Amino acid sequence: MAERPSFAPAGIVTLTTDFGNRDGYVGAMKGVVLGLGAGLSLVDIAHEVEPQSVAHGAVVLRAACPRFPRGTVHVGVVDPGVGTKRAGIVVLAGGHAFVGPDNGLFTLAAAALGEPIEARRIDVTGALRGIVADVPSSTFHGRDVFAPVGAALAAGTIDAGEIGPIHEPTALPTAPPRAIDGGLEGTVTYVDRFGNAVTNLSAGELAAGGLQRAHVEVSGRTVAIVATYGEAEPGGVCALVGSEGFLEIAVRDGSARDRLGLTHGATVRVRGGAA
Amino acid sequence: MAERPSFAPAGIVTLTTDFGNRDGYVGAMKGVVLGLGAGLSLVDIAHEVEPQSVAHGAVVLRAACPRFPRGTVHVGVVDPGVGTKRAGIVVLAGGHAFVGPDNGLFTLAAAALGEPIEARRIDVTGALRGIVADVPSSTFHGRDVFAPVGAALAAGTIDAGEIGPIHEPTALPTAPPRAIDGGLEGTVTYVDRFGNAVTNLSAGELAAGGLQRAHVEVSGRTVAIVATYGEAEPGGVCALVGSEGFLEIAVRDGSARDRLGLTHGATVRVRGGAA
Amino acid sequence: MAERPSFAPAGIVTLTTDFGNRDGYVGAMKGVVLGLGAGLSLVDIAHEVEPQSVAHGAVVLRAACPRFPRGTVHVGVVDPGVGTKRAGIVVLAGGHAFVGPDNGLFTLAAAALGEPIEARRIDVTGALRGIVADVPSSTFHGRDVFAPVGAALAAGTIDAGEIGPIHEPTALPTAPPRAIDGGLEGTVTYVDRFGNAVTNLSAGELAAGGLQRAHVEVSGRTVAIVATYGEAEPGGVCALVGSEGFLEIAVRDGSARDRLGLTHGATVRVRGGAA
Repeated sequence: MAERPSFAPAGIVTLTTDFGNRDGYVGAMKGVVLGLGAGLSLVDIAHEVEPQSVAHGAVVLRAACPRFPRGTVHVGVVDPGVGTKRAGIVVLAGGHAFVGPDNGLFTLAAAALGEPIEARRIDVTGALRGIVADVPSSTFHGRDVFAPVGAALAAGTIDAGEIGPIHEPTALPTAPPRAIDGGLEGTVTYVDRFGNAVTNLSAGELAAGGLQRAHVEVSGRTVAIVATYGEAEPGGVCALVGSEGFLEIAVRDGSARDRLGLTHGATVRVRGGAA
Repeated sequence: MAERPSFAPAGIVTLTTDFGNRDGYVGAMKGVVLGLGAGLSLVDIAHEVEPQSVAHGAVVLRAACPRFPRGTVHVGVVDPGVGTKRAGIVVLAGGHAFVGPDNGLFTLAAAALGEPIEARRIDVTGALRGIVADVPSSTFHGRDVFAPVGAALAAGTIDAGEIGPIHEPTALPTAPPRAIDGGLEGTVTYVDRFGNAVTNLSAGELAAGGLQRAHVEVSGRTVAIVATYGEAEPGGVCALVGSEGFLEIAVRDGSARDRLGLTHGATVRVRGGAA
Repeated sequence: MAERPSFAPAGIVTLTTDFGNRDGYVGAMKGVVLGLGAGLSLVDIAHEVEPQSVAHGAVVLRAACPRFPRGTVHVGVVDPGVGTKRAGIVVLAGGHAFVGPDNGLFTLAAAALGEPIEARRIDVTGALRGIVADVPSSTFHGRDVFAPVGAALAAGTIDAGEIGPIHEPTALPTAPPRAIDGGLEGTVTYVDRFGNAVTNLSAGELAAGGLQRAHVEVSGRTVAIVATYGEAEPGGVCALVGSEGFLEIAVRDGSARDRLGLTHGATVRVRGGAA
């Protein structure tokens, strides 16, 4: 028999959404969670995910979720397909549970937590009746389906096996780095609040290619890879391996987004040798 | 005797303000709550309510508060009248308690929770002495009056009856929908983060008028009412009953605010028959 | 022997950062805290501190932290020097503990809490091994050093005396008010979300100079000091002592930032006599 993921609830529910901090949507989800599980700990991860950007949400979840203790339930709602036929899912990985739409939002976080990974399609007609809303809104499954499922899992009211049938989750579309003459070509996957442009080039890939101290071609200029911001000139452009282990383009005391016009999808090339 | 609202504290205090997430005001309120009630659960609803917009705050509270369990205390501070003679109040409705300025902020949430509703004027000279600040700031009653009153109610330190005398709360000014030839005319009461424009036309009113599948005239165009976003063309304008049961104007994968220039107060007409 | 600050943990960890609410950085810190201290209460103070503005963060912490109960641990991360040689510190003041970079971020909050104040340099090679990350990221000490140290202090896993050696903390640069002909000259230290411009002129200093009802010269105009917003004309410029006890310039139902162009560092003069 294949190993099955285990999930033993730790009483913590995290919330990650693109609902912002000005409407009542996040609050409604919190009320539902506390109504189903008195004493659960609610933890906000981020609610200013770019509206309807599953790719952005996936990176946020990858950065935060693996840091929580095993047994945490992560409810994530970035859901441009709400009201269509897209499924709702629960993904178990590394002793954590993820609850939300089946659109690739959990691909990166689950992969970071590692095998075995198991996903189930949420079936609101079975064991979940009486937990989810009787008639879920067509526009707000976060409140009517995902928050109650997350609360029930976190409180131990239902078991992960009762969520619904095993399901092959939709994967986030990703373009892996590719080998080029003398190095690697990757793309910017994320630009953070400070304007740092995070790429899909991992420290491991750079090391395998002997490129840890190579040079980076981006936006028509060539910049050196440094070990820390402190090695860069104040105001200077640099490249370094960031806190999640991916190469990022940064401006010391400034913004690479503003300086270089970097956005999601921009091309970055790393090559050895002199700049 | 008329039925009296009951309130049995559940140990939860929610916070809804227009203080934003960049200043220390919200944190000061949280410190006060935890100082008066060790072990209380603090829950952020939203702090990016439009500055000084009581109407906006009222809609946020209506969306979120009724989802919490009975016994929750909701502290709400959108308070353009701080430093004037406006009263502070506690409103009991549906087993919940609301604490904040007497300016209509709680009108919609209390109505959603239903009768019996009872309001009391906060009297800082009676049982609340030693709980509220000795000399409340003239500019920050959220910290000096409402947070301590909320904490004391949630911790069970004081009883709702000790807050002060029964008080007729100020009502939020609202304009109900009106009948027009062949349909109903309403207004946009709220535009959310995604640019969806929520109206004051409820699903019940539409059904009573046989208008569930009627057409909507807004910003000089006529759009169909659909059941879900999935029925609309990608990028197309549609109208549908949103997650709180009110008709809203939306753009699939886009913003009705940006596309149609919709803001608070815009007129919307619903009529049966062909578009 | 000199009095030594005491610290008895209350199980509360507050978080104040410039990480915003759109990335995974704050969530990662929360995961680390809960992983090291099950059952700790996490409280967000503010995450929209102006990026890399230590001065802004210091004012936010001063406003919020002293309101919490003794025994609270405040983790603050506004850290433009991450990746340089700047130290990490723990500051004990008034029964509270502050954890973060040694750059002046805690100067104002610790002073507000009062003597005795004691700071220690975080030594990750001693008792903290196994608590902090084995190889801290060069760009994210909030997650790899400060969150774990804060969690361990709050959970009682380590004692403040085990953090590292006594250390003289870096002070926030401040310019105190100075006496001028007939009054005092100060500066704007902070402009809040509402556009109120808070100065470094305290109520105590105004009283000592007999200036409580004097006039204020700012941006080329002269405005009266009032006791409450209610005394000002709607839309009028006024000056008043704000909720933290400092003179601030405000516009009733408006923004002094927008109306007068006030920003951090602007000069304000208070003089007695007629306007």
